[in-house]
Amino acid sequence: MLYLVGLGLGNVDDITVRGMAIVQKCSRVYLESYTSIMSFGLDKKKLEDFFGKEIKEADRTTVELHCNDMLEEAHDSNVCLLVIGDPFGATTHADLVLTARKAGINVEIVHNASIINAVGCCGLQLYKFGEIISIVFWEENWRPDSYYFKIEENRKRGLHTLCLLDIKTKEQTVENLMRGRTEFLPPKYMTCSEAAKQLLEIAERIMKEGIVPAYTPDTECVGLARIGWNDQKIIFCSLKALCDMDMGPPLHSLIIPGELHPLELDFLKSLPIS
Amino acid sequence: MLYLVGLGLGNVDDITVRGMAIVQKCSRVYLESYTSIMSFGLDKKKLEDFFGKEIKEADRTTVELHCNDMLEEAHDSNVCLLVIGDPFGATTHADLVLTARKAGINVEIVHNASIINAVGCCGLQLYKFGEIISIVFWEENWRPDSYYFKIEENRKRGLHTLCLLDIKTKEQTVENLMRGRTEFLPPKYMTCSEAAKQLLEIAERIMKEGIVPAYTPDTECVGLARIGWNDQKIIFCSLKALCDMDMGPPLHSLIIPGELHPLELDFLKSLPIS
Repeated sequence: MLYLVGLGLGNVDDITVRGMAIVQKCSRVYLESYTSIMSFGLDKKKLEDFFGKEIKEADRTTVELHCNDMLEEAHDSNVCLLVIGDPFGATTHADLVLTARKAGINVEIVHNASIINAVGCCGLQLYKFGEIISIVFWEENWRPDSYYFKIEENRKRGLHTLCLLDIKTKEQTVENLMRGRTEFLPPKYMTCSEAAKQLLEIAERIMKEGIVPAYTPDTECVGLARIGWNDQKIIFCSLKALCDMDMGPPLHSLIIPGELHPLELDFLKSLPIS
Repeated sequence: MLYLVGLGLGNVDDITVRGMAIVQKCSRVYLESYTSIMSFGLDKKKLEDFFGKEIKEADRTTVELHCNDMLEEAHDSNVCLLVIGDPFGATTHADLVLTARKAGINVEIVHNASIINAVGCCGLQLYKFGEIISIVFWEENWRPDSYYFKIEENRKRGLHTLCLLDIKTKEQTVENLMRGRTEFLPPKYMTCSEAAKQLLEIAERIMKEGIVPAYTPDTECVGLARIGWNDQKIIFCSLKALCDMDMGPPLHSLIIPGELHPLELDFLKSLPIS
């Protein structure tokens, strides 16, 4: 049996009681480390102490390329893959479930919270969100902005846009890649401030084309950091103000609201302003 | 301190380890019963046995109108409100948090899975969903169809639509209401079949107006029942076929997909067909 167990938002005790019981009965426990936030808060060591059990880290390469080993083990024994958030937050996991199913291996999922439903904590109603977007780090020759049009479409319909911010782990320098060195750059997490600056740069470009952009520096937005952690921070301020705001350690997310219901606005205004 | 603790998808052990510890230390534990599925699976008795603790049921009236009692208790002691799904799934709870905050009471949230992120288990990617809609029971003189246009908008953009299906609990007959009797009708939960029929009735009306509807009887959709439970059922079939499908006990939800990525389609096709 293969179990995919969601770890929720990142405290060791965010695992469900059911998930905890499954970890205890499994002969092998993997921890998926690709899409996650291992450098902050939740690491293998903390989880091993909490579960009193050895855990094997499985990075993207292991899960995507070597999933056969995992599935082979799951044929005759109970194997568990721990995943930050909900198990279906990443395409990789849907792929793994499908491969397992085709190989005749039973799969059980233990769901958990993820940023996608936990953003409700800022007071914006979940059924008023439109398409989720991802804002990626710009590079010298690669500055994608297609997500701008999704924000625009959402706002036209009065819908909020949740912006997930880029995470870069296990990135290599071109030099190391060429030389086949498996040395990685330190992980990089996009901040609310970086995201706000990118969004405003796109709006400025749009304006120069003589088009009214979907938002301006004065558009009020919601900055979120470390949701579900004891030191979570939620800020309601203009995009311009967010550019200079230090929201502290990762993970950060950002919301560009659509039309605000009076209760939503009331809730946002009750948030601290810095 | 006021704790809002999500119970997740409806098994007693879907509560997080952190949520469980909070329940243990609280002097008063409420269970919100309005938006929930008390008649099926998870009831007060089961939770009391699981926690070894007395629980007070709090229906909509209690939470919305008598929240002051709850907040007064939370002034000097630890009070917990258990909520099916994630605590911010319903407007009522955002309202409660806001009222508490204004009264100077500390609030802590324990997030959990909700249908909004758990739908990922059908293989459709969460970032490809558009606005969520609610399909309500039609009555003789009240047959709203405004959600149709939201499906249309989502499909135009290639986005999936999650349709939450109506729940009617504590409904009264007009006669009982007039006589001031607090007798309630048995709870009613919309099935996938009922939702599919309503959707097709709307499409038929649109067609009669000479407009090409956003979907037809042949449009393939995903029927979901009891997600996260041991007997969960997920079906990928045409809307027409879903009309005659018995998905078993509540809760049901429905997805009208947008554009399908090959991996999404592959996953859907691996689902049982009945």
